[in-house]
Amino acid sequence: MTAVSKDRDHQSLDAEMRRIGAAARDAARALAIASPESKTKALRAAAQAIRDHAAEIVAANGDDVAAAKRAGLAAPLIDRLMLDAARVAAIAKGLDEIAGLPDPVGTELARWTRPNGLDIARVRVPLGVIGIIYESRPNVTADAGGLCLRAGNACILRGGSESFHSSRAIASCLAEGLRAAKLPVAAIQLVPTRDRAAVSMMLTMPEFIDVIIPRGGKALIERVMNESRIPVLAHLEGNCHVYVDGAADLAMARRITVNAKMRRTSVCGAAETLLVDRKVAGTHLAPLVKDLLDAGCAVRGDAQTQKLDPRVAPASDKDWDTEFLDAIIAVKLVDGVDGAIQHVNRHGSHHTDTIVTGDAAAAERFMREVDSGIVLHNASTQFADGSEFGMGAEIGISTNRLHARGPVGAEQLTSFKYVVRGTGQIRP
Amino acid sequence: MTAVSKDRDHQSLDAEMRRIGAAARDAARALAIASPESKTKALRAAAQAIRDHAAEIVAANGDDVAAAKRAGLAAPLIDRLMLDAARVAAIAKGLDEIAGLPDPVGTELARWTRPNGLDIARVRVPLGVIGIIYESRPNVTADAGGLCLRAGNACILRGGSESFHSSRAIASCLAEGLRAAKLPVAAIQLVPTRDRAAVSMMLTMPEFIDVIIPRGGKALIERVMNESRIPVLAHLEGNCHVYVDGAADLAMARRITVNAKMRRTSVCGAAETLLVDRKVAGTHLAPLVKDLLDAGCAVRGDAQTQKLDPRVAPASDKDWDTEFLDAIIAVKLVDGVDGAIQHVNRHGSHHTDTIVTGDAAAAERFMREVDSGIVLHNASTQFADGSEFGMGAEIGISTNRLHARGPVGAEQLTSFKYVVRGTGQIRP
Repeated sequence: MTAVSKDRDHQSLDAEMRRIGAAARDAARALAIASPESKTKALRAAAQAIRDHAAEIVAANGDDVAAAKRAGLAAPLIDRLMLDAARVAAIAKGLDEIAGLPDPVGTELARWTRPNGLDIARVRVPLGVIGIIYESRPNVTADAGGLCLRAGNACILRGGSESFHSSRAIASCLAEGLRAAKLPVAAIQLVPTRDRAAVSMMLTMPEFIDVIIPRGGKALIERVMNESRIPVLAHLEGNCHVYVDGAADLAMARRITVNAKMRRTSVCGAAETLLVDRKVAGTHLAPLVKDLLDAGCAVRGDAQTQKLDPRVAPASDKDWDTEFLDAIIAVKLVDGVDGAIQHVNRHGSHHTDTIVTGDAAAAERFMREVDSGIVLHNASTQFADGSEFGMGAEIGISTNRLHARGPVGAEQLTSFKYVVRGTGQIRP
Repeated sequence: MTAVSKDRDHQSLDAEMRRIGAAARDAARALAIASPESKTKALRAAAQAIRDHAAEIVAANGDDVAAAKRAGLAAPLIDRLMLDAARVAAIAKGLDEIAGLPDPVGTELARWTRPNGLDIARVRVPLGVIGIIYESRPNVTADAGGLCLRAGNACILRGGSESFHSSRAIASCLAEGLRAAKLPVAAIQLVPTRDRAAVSMMLTMPEFIDVIIPRGGKALIERVMNESRIPVLAHLEGNCHVYVDGAADLAMARRITVNAKMRRTSVCGAAETLLVDRKVAGTHLAPLVKDLLDAGCAVRGDAQTQKLDPRVAPASDKDWDTEFLDAIIAVKLVDGVDGAIQHVNRHGSHHTDTIVTGDAAAAERFMREVDSGIVLHNASTQFADGSEFGMGAEIGISTNRLHARGPVGAEQLTSFKYVVRGTGQIRP
């Protein structure tokens, strides 16, 4: 391609992205004042459209999967990409569940009256336009689009290029739902190109997009955080810890440790480091390590842990800072709750950490002093999940400190305004 | 200066800023678990130190004012910079008021129990380290430092170079307060150089600073928003509107319009545009315009407004989008509440807008559909202020949609964490 034609392409893509942005902004205005019933209707009609067009979605997905195989994509990525009848049904069910969530818009968060008689209410409103940038899973198109709609936001979806046809088939069902409810179709738009330049354009359109949510691997998220001129709600790493305190019940500690690490190793709430109180090294360390090894987990230990079993490999300094997302755990002895708090705050990623102990005071100290979005006592770190929290569907777990920390559900996709009712007050 | 020595200076400033950042991070950890009483004690002791050292503060300020005069700074800027005994007393009083605010840290925002018995609480925690970048007013050093401390945050303050000596004198009183309460002195640090490169360094230290708050003119705020790699809580413009509806009581509309525009013209809540319902152009427009002109306000009107008085100048297209921050107002007829909503959403800055009307339904529509942080009915836009809202001291009015919208007080300077109490639960 010549430089001139490339430049012309860039200009036409830029114009296209700005047109999408302006349409999203207009749709957001309409959505902000749409009734809860109309949004619910659109979500249920979209779910039905997904069921009605299941065969077409599976066929479109077949094109994506075939292309991915030709391109030599790794088997786990192809599995993430693949849709069959059951997975399509699950996508429709997810939309129905979102339809059943309470509409957060219009909720009064607080209301009070001032001495001068002004009546002040803080009321939830949508955020506006949300840009979502994600990788291979095509179901995100429906999940993210649906959750944005529930909270009254317009969204611009930029899916992975591998799932291009699948996402387009799903997006057309979402559009069908919007039309059925007489809501603007531009409320959920899919970027209609695989050109990666479209992502950079999204990240620099603050006049059209209010918040960017990246969903995917660390490289994607870091690229988005570095390039974006728009606030980002990001989920970085989950380097999560289980601390087994000196006052822990051993049976409970074993159950929680194996679950926190091994239930699913690829989720952000999976434990990556086990800390054991030096006081109970003699009684607790060996069974905890044995359970993990028996469950098929590779154990990398400090000096004392290595002595327990020839299968324990030495832990390197880097291991304490690593999110393995795999059947690997780093194990270390620490000096009581103080040592645990210090280790977690220094090496953790401020995501999710748990203490197992029968000592209520130690538990409260750990949960107060560990600076993480989710802290638990006597429970598995794998509970780090919006639906386990009772918040319904989630778009991810935020590691931000601003706006939303922890699970991001419909409520977290809102802003608020102050509504002030007076009787002629002027300021002295 | 040679390139080499300039580079060496840059390196040493960079090292100094990183040292300040690391000290703030450590201090934030200590502050996050400090008792409410110790923070209150530090604030009261700082107020007392300000009173004890009033003469030194005024003397230091004299150096700043003399330098500003030599540099030919404009009179209003010199007035902003100037401190006398009364202004120093007001700074001390401000700290005492912040000391009296409820401590937001540790408040349970919500608590619920899941079917599996997990007890989940959402609890307020500090944001962490806040970087504040401001211009000439030296009182911001105390106000911002105090408010950050009340909410358990460490802060790094970068004041205007004109107020360098004044801010240093005030900061040393804040340090005295921290020492009296045995809190880390690094909880409130003033950047000890006038070098503008320090600002760029602050904006690129996400490992040490969690949020940046700029306070000052539009140029400063835009520079910060463009350069920052850290989330920004920004106050952009307040292009605020008064809409006088067809069902407005004329006397109330006159009172509110003059107050909204003229009480103080330099505040962000000052009205910049008056919209009048075409239905009452014959009865309401003339007295509203006359009041403004009589109060010394320049009026720029649309065609019909220009006919009322030879003193009315023609409004240009740009005037509808302008924050005058001066005794100037743009006046326009619109077609009822629909026309008003459309104009405000198109031309306003989503800050603060009011409707004057006796029609409750029109008022509710205006407040629902106008997309601004603060919407009012029958009250002056000049109430856009944290203390008028009953939120105590504020650090500004945020025009963000994420995290904090509207007045930013101690509560808005916090994040939250989820505290989950279990009895051995593992995730199925």
